[in-house]
Amino acid sequence: MVLAKDIFKEFKEHSVSEFFRKNAAMLGYTGKIRSLTTVIHEGVTNAIDAAEEAGILPEIFVSIKSMDDSSGHYKVIIEDNASGIPEEYIPRVFGRMLAGTKLHRNVQSRGQQGIGISGGVMFAQSTSGNPTKIVTSTEDGEVISNEVMIDVEKNEGKIANRKAWKGDWRGTRIEFEVKDVLYQRSRYGPYNYLRMTAMANPHVQIRFLEPDGSFTIFERATDEIPERPEPIAPHPAGVRADDLLTLAKETRSRSIGTFLVNDLSRFSRGKLKKIKELVDVDLDEDPSELNWTKAEKIVSAFKKMDFIAPPTKGLRPIGEEKIESGLNQILEPEFAFATTRSPEVYRGGIPFIIEAGVAYGGSAGAGSGSENKGLELLRFANRAPLIFNQGGCAVTSAARDIDWRRYNVNPEKTPITLFINVVSVHVPYTSAGKQSVAEEPEIYEEIRQAIMESTRNLKSFLRRKIKRRERKERAGIFEKYIPIIARRAAALTDKKVPDAEPLIKEITGVDDAKEKED
Amino acid sequence: MVLAKDIFKEFKEHSVSEFFRKNAAMLGYTGKIRSLTTVIHEGVTNAIDAAEEAGILPEIFVSIKSMDDSSGHYKVIIEDNASGIPEEYIPRVFGRMLAGTKLHRNVQSRGQQGIGISGGVMFAQSTSGNPTKIVTSTEDGEVISNEVMIDVEKNEGKIANRKAWKGDWRGTRIEFEVKDVLYQRSRYGPYNYLRMTAMANPHVQIRFLEPDGSFTIFERATDEIPERPEPIAPHPAGVRADDLLTLAKETRSRSIGTFLVNDLSRFSRGKLKKIKELVDVDLDEDPSELNWTKAEKIVSAFKKMDFIAPPTKGLRPIGEEKIESGLNQILEPEFAFATTRSPEVYRGGIPFIIEAGVAYGGSAGAGSGSENKGLELLRFANRAPLIFNQGGCAVTSAARDIDWRRYNVNPEKTPITLFINVVSVHVPYTSAGKQSVAEEPEIYEEIRQAIMESTRNLKSFLRRKIKRRERKERAGIFEKYIPIIARRAAALTDKKVPDAEPLIKEITGVDDAKEKED
Repeated sequence: MVLAKDIFKEFKEHSVSEFFRKNAAMLGYTGKIRSLTTVIHEGVTNAIDAAEEAGILPEIFVSIKSMDDSSGHYKVIIEDNASGIPEEYIPRVFGRMLAGTKLHRNVQSRGQQGIGISGGVMFAQSTSGNPTKIVTSTEDGEVISNEVMIDVEKNEGKIANRKAWKGDWRGTRIEFEVKDVLYQRSRYGPYNYLRMTAMANPHVQIRFLEPDGSFTIFERATDEIPERPEPIAPHPAGVRADDLLTLAKETRSRSIGTFLVNDLSRFSRGKLKKIKELVDVDLDEDPSELNWTKAEKIVSAFKKMDFIAPPTKGLRPIGEEKIESGLNQILEPEFAFATTRSPEVYRGGIPFIIEAGVAYGGSAGAGSGSENKGLELLRFANRAPLIFNQGGCAVTSAARDIDWRRYNVNPEKTPITLFINVVSVHVPYTSAGKQSVAEEPEIYEEIRQAIMESTRNLKSFLRRKIKRRERKERAGIFEKYIPIIARRAAALTDKKVPDAEPLIKEITGVDDAKEKED
Repeated sequence: MVLAKDIFKEFKEHSVSEFFRKNAAMLGYTGKIRSLTTVIHEGVTNAIDAAEEAGILPEIFVSIKSMDDSSGHYKVIIEDNASGIPEEYIPRVFGRMLAGTKLHRNVQSRGQQGIGISGGVMFAQSTSGNPTKIVTSTEDGEVISNEVMIDVEKNEGKIANRKAWKGDWRGTRIEFEVKDVLYQRSRYGPYNYLRMTAMANPHVQIRFLEPDGSFTIFERATDEIPERPEPIAPHPAGVRADDLLTLAKETRSRSIGTFLVNDLSRFSRGKLKKIKELVDVDLDEDPSELNWTKAEKIVSAFKKMDFIAPPTKGLRPIGEEKIESGLNQILEPEFAFATTRSPEVYRGGIPFIIEAGVAYGGSAGAGSGSENKGLELLRFANRAPLIFNQGGCAVTSAARDIDWRRYNVNPEKTPITLFINVVSVHVPYTSAGKQSVAEEPEIYEEIRQAIMESTRNLKSFLRRKIKRRERKERAGIFEKYIPIIARRAAALTDKKVPDAEPLIKEITGVDDAKEKED
């Protein structure tokens, strides 16, 4: 037997950077193609978030340049036109995991963890040994360039090679050097990732330079500057005692009562009166006096009260019209339909919205070119494409559990593309790699409803299409035989051959003018 | 437009505990049933690992007691007979995430992250507000009890209510108080989790007390004390420049050359001679002189050299015989077969072994009782059951991609249970919740091969079974009609009725003695 003291000689503490260095797969760094796409994903989501947060119409430039084919060595550049980064924050934004402006705020954004972009810096340094170059300017007339590496043991950014020059440019450019990756124009590659991003973000312009020199502009379909995402205060029905204590630590309110009114949504003065009758907690005390027992009493009182549903002003869905025009523009289908469902909540109080779109025909469907067939599922969370780990995702299981035959769809053959966007201030991802949405029952059910609503519309279209085809076939038969019958009958009765046209129209109901309208 | 300096006012840094508090779903805390199973999972994997590491035959006691049905309040106790925990480590083992004896060692164990058990403490305190009680003794005559909570902002354990008394007991008992969970005997509940654990760990005894007072003992099927898992040094073919630099920081060797020989596996003195010819790096320098350029040169030289496959002495598969006996004991099937494949490597040098077992009939198959039908997939990694996130797992996709009809199996109807165990010093999990294995191509392919090997054997069994049934049916017909024909023939020819038995045997080939052997 081995003694405890000998076993515990091996005991060590680790930084979050060390953890993700060793478990890079959890951040999406697995496989040569996927790893490259993940770097692009982290850079582009950050870039769009930054522009939107500053209230700027996003213009993103992405370039992937091959440095040496044999070692899969690429230089990846992602540039935005957002408000830039104050220099003192650079080491922490790019060199420290779990740091950022998003993790603690109840605000809808693509990123929400403070891990992604530093994960990219880590991947770059652990495959190429090179720092990541950050060029940024806040439009103060000075452009600054720094090289960042992560001190993995300390989870800290180290800066080198600082340069500064005068210039009027504003934005941030990130230059990663990565190895052991592979550029391909496959479903899982950067091209498709950017194409999907453009589809879900019609207000974003993306310019993309591929390693072979191909240059693509994904043009924006709208010039509307997106509304800035707003923080939404937690809803009483969704907070737990533990959340209340965490919120109380940071409040500026002077009493527990005003803290509830100020820091929760839908908690009015009237509710404060009401809760005073329900709990034996002194709500005039300082919030620092709140302990577990009191918090638990307050939370169980919440359960006995009625609250209006949480505000959804902070949620930014794409919108039905824009999803449809996006599908039409990119897939040129015979039919497209989209729906933005009403806001719902999960875990009692976290608001979310599901959007679904369906496209049929054209270049819709799985596969590419004339090979298009079967169902293609495009998943998005807060407009960021999810292209990996489809297996473990609530979107995939909701789509799989639909009885497709009821909608005249054969998922193996019918050329349809299904577009789903999960919008929330807090998307419940199953992993730090943010590629699948956890199966929260309310989210699953809403996705199901959204898919069914879309496919019901597709079904009517397909039924009309089938009817039309049948009518045309029927018309074909009559058109062929009625004139023959007419001729024979005329010959037999020795009369003039009658005009068969009016009869054909009457029988088949086919009328060119009407057909076009249908 | 909003200025950068205003946006960055919101910038904050977070601890890993805060991150997982907010994203508990990433650790498996999602849904009432699953959350309870996750707590049990973390406690039991730690308990078995601890016993094995100490070279002790594991005896685990698990108790779940309902405290109050209305709030889903349960007390969960997990007790082991391992070597106990030295008191000074308690705050870090249970109160600090990313701390432990496993993350940095290349050794096969169920846990490998240093997050799990403190995740359980966090879940307990954030649902019930209560600390977790740890009672432990290293067999030094003193038993110590402490209550641990996590200081989430600092990622540190806080200790309260210390008690100590004299006693001869040895081991560790953890008492969690959790709320918002639900006990159920479903597929995803603790009972099934422990049943699966018993199946893959025939050397472990588990005693289980359920909330309704039911008491189950999962008896051990073998008394063999498991060999202690051994660390395996990294293999040259699997290390990257970055890994080499990380290893060099911790080496005790005095030169880069001896560092390679001492700290890598399969790197002999002969190889050292060879690499000296291949690279222009001074291998007599101190390892602290190793930089990226030198490390990259050394790693590319590795690629030009041949190495024996990595040692697999540190891998501890269950073994074919034990898997079969486990399947037989628990499922009482008509047929069981298991295979332990030869070791392979992924990512160039990380060794792994795939084990597969298949059982047919009895209580094998999805569903329960007489409802058993269709394929049931049981996934394990280093003998720990994986019961959630089956969608995103390499095991699931390998099983799904099998052309089952070729093996006479209808995955919707045939009552079969498929058992897969992924054994490695580093299982590439897709998430900190450790519920799915990433799709590394080599691992996927080996799982496929293992399944096909098992199902080929099942196919022969099923073919024999069908043949036997056909033969019996044929025999039935002859047995019925030959005596009648014999009687009629005898009557017609007025002769004595002949003995039909030898003829029947000759025609049908059915022989009781032979049948039993078959």
